[in-house]
Order: sequence, then C-alpha cells, then structure tokens
Amino acid sequence: MNFSSKLIEEAVNEFSKLPGVGKRTALRFVLHLMKQDPAEVNRFGNAFIKLRTELRYCEKCHNVSDQVLCEVCVNPHRDHSVVCVVEDIRDVMAIENTQQYRGVYHVLGGIISPMDGIGPGDLNIETLVKKAAASEMKEVIMALSTTMEGDTTNFYIYKRLKEHQLTITTIARGISIGDELEYADEVTLGRSIVNRTLYENSLTIK
Amino acid sequence: MNFSSKLIEEAVNEFSKLPGVGKRTALRFVLHLMKQDPAEVNRFGNAFIKLRTELRYCEKCHNVSDQVLCEVCVNPHRDHSVVCVVEDIRDVMAIENTQQYRGVYHVLGGIISPMDGIGPGDLNIETLVKKAAASEMKEVIMALSTTMEGDTTNFYIYKRLKEHQLTITTIARGISIGDELEYADEVTLGRSIVNRTLYENSLTIK
Repeated sequence: MNFSSKLIEEAVNEFSKLPGVGKRTALRFVLHLMKQDPAEVNRFGNAFIKLRTELRYCEKCHNVSDQVLCEVCVNPHRDHSVVCVVEDIRDVMAIENTQQYRGVYHVLGGIISPMDGIGPGDLNIETLVKKAAASEMKEVIMALSTTMEGDTTNFYIYKRLKEHQLTITTIARGISIGDELEYADEVTLGRSIVNRTLYENSLTIK
Repeated sequence: MNFSSKLIEEAVNEFSKLPGVGKRTALRFVLHLMKQDPAEVNRFGNAFIKLRTELRYCEKCHNVSDQVLCEVCVNPHRDHSVVCVVEDIRDVMAIENTQQYRGVYHVLGGIISPMDGIGPGDLNIETLVKKAAASEMKEVIMALSTTMEGDTTNFYIYKRLKEHQLTITTIARGISIGDELEYADEVTLGRSIVNRTLYENSLTIK
C-alpha cells in the first residue's frame, strides 16, 4: 500500500504490531485519529508511554499496581492466609470479576515451559516459597491452565511447598455451567464424577 | 472490569475509543504493550502524536502530504490536466493501488450530507472551481460513492463547473469482475448494458 505520507505509514506500521491488527485495520485506526482533536491524540499516545514507564508490580504478589503494594494486598478485608497462584494478571482480573474470592493472589508471570525456554527460575516461585516459610499462609489454591505446562508448574510448586504446613488445593475441574453432558469430553466428565460435591453446597453460591 | 491499576484502565479506555475495539481487545493490546521494550512503546505512542501534529495537507489537492505539495502533485510524469474528484484520502489510496490512473486528484474531505449538517461550504469545492477557472484542467472525473449524498455532491459540482470548458466524466458503474449476472442488482445490470464498451478496449487493460 502507498500511503503518500511517511507519517501515516509509520503510524500504520505501529498499529499493525498489535496482536490481530492488519494494515487495513491499522489504517482505519489512523484515519480515525487524524479526525480527532490534537489534545485528544496527545492523551492517546501518552497513555501508553506512561503505562510502560510508570507501571509497577506489587512487591508482595507481583500483580500490577500503581503503588508498592497492590489494591488486593493492602485490603484488610481480604483473607491473607489464602493465596491463589495464577499465571498472569489477566487471571487475577477474571477471578476478581467473579466476586467469589476473598483471599489474595500470587502472580507467577508465566508457566514452566521448557519448549519456550522458561524454567522455574524465570518465574516468581522463590517469593512464593519464602511467603510460605513465613507461615502467614494457610492455603494455596493452584489456578493454572490444565495443559502439560500448567500441570508441570503445579507439580513443581507442590514439591517446593509440601514441607510447609499448608493445604494445597486446585480449582475445581468439571462441566461448565450451561454445557450439555453428551458433548463434554471424557476426561472432564470423569473428573466431575470423581470430584462430585454435596448438592447442598451448590445452593449457597450466590 | 477492575484493572487494579489506574494506568492500565486509562490505556484500555484510550484503545477502546478506536473504531471496532471493545474493552476486551483493548486489554489484549495493553498486555501486549506491557511486554514490549520501553523504547518500543515510546515509538508507538509518539508515532500518533507526531502524525497528528506534523501531518499536512497538499495545498493543491488536499491529499495528505509531508510537504507543501503531495507526491502526486509534484510528480511531472502525471497528467495534470485530468483531475479525479474523491471523497477522502482512502479513495486516493484505493485508486493509486490499481496503478491504472496517471492523472492527479482533488480530495473533497467529505460529501454533501444535510442530515449530518455538511454543506458545500464545509468541503474543498471552491478550490476545485478556482483550479477549473485557471484552465489548466481538461477533464474532471467524478469518483464519489453512488449514494444519495454522492449523487447530490456530483450534481452540485457539475453545476459549478459546467460553465468552464471541461469534460466532466464519472467512473464506470457496472458488473464487478468475477460477479455472476444473475445475482447482480437490476440498476447496475441495466446501467452496464446502456454504458456498454467496445470489446477491443477491454483487451488493452493490463
């Protein structure tokens, strides 16, 4: 494509670096920005620069934060003895949106994946072990994906934590709410029968 | 959604102002930027700020340009006596990509649309009339969309230009190449028969 302007070409190239954005969509974004107020576009561009330079991570749980500790870690109404271990901040947001969890988090920043060259040393596992040793924790909930990498990471963390006096749990695997049994895969359906729960318990969930 | 960081929230809000981008896609973009090099993100943000502050419009044809005159207008190999009238710069790019046009352009910056409060005075029509009066132009090709607004604009420009010694043409309307006749709408099919062209002419198009 010939953009007849180096400035437009540059802006289109920058937009098309975003995941899932092609040249055509990028051009649509650029034409949109060209119609906006300069002050508006200034705010647009600076929001990302500011994000990248000023964003900090919580010293306790490695969640994103504008302060030294994140909003969850400084909240006295949260149960600090229950720690949910997740892969990244997207998972924190997803769990927070359910409004069902009152404990705190520990963000690993990835999962063990030898194929991508990611070992335990690249993740925030040591700080989790240290927190466990300080014995303020009572339960660790493993909330990683059920992939080969997720299972490896689960097992590694389990081995590192089991010497401490801790309950180590994983989130329930089972049939999604609204799903039909006949279309569920065998492993999930099998697991959902083995790990069946008392009917009464399902009545108490808001 | 709770982003647990004002910076992330701000960046997500900015991205979701783009056409067709929701909060979820915006968050995906933001998480992508968070993983990039700060210098990379700096370049990203500044590309748009620079675009909005430095981008200029060609004084002759109102196309986007980095200089006083655009690349098409300064090109001595283009035929400056043929002027193609288009709605916006996207149309210039589309026509340039065909590599079939050797004349120059005139970008109106919109079309007459009373519903949206856009009258002839809001468009670059006076400069076109002035150019026509200067008599360097021999042909004006109207290349606007075939909507009510496009037709109104065509007619308005035709009335303003007809006193000058000019050939006023419109781009050919007909069946798209690759389309099947039975699915074509009646108006287009009818027009394609009335405006039939010599078969020999279609052989010379590369």
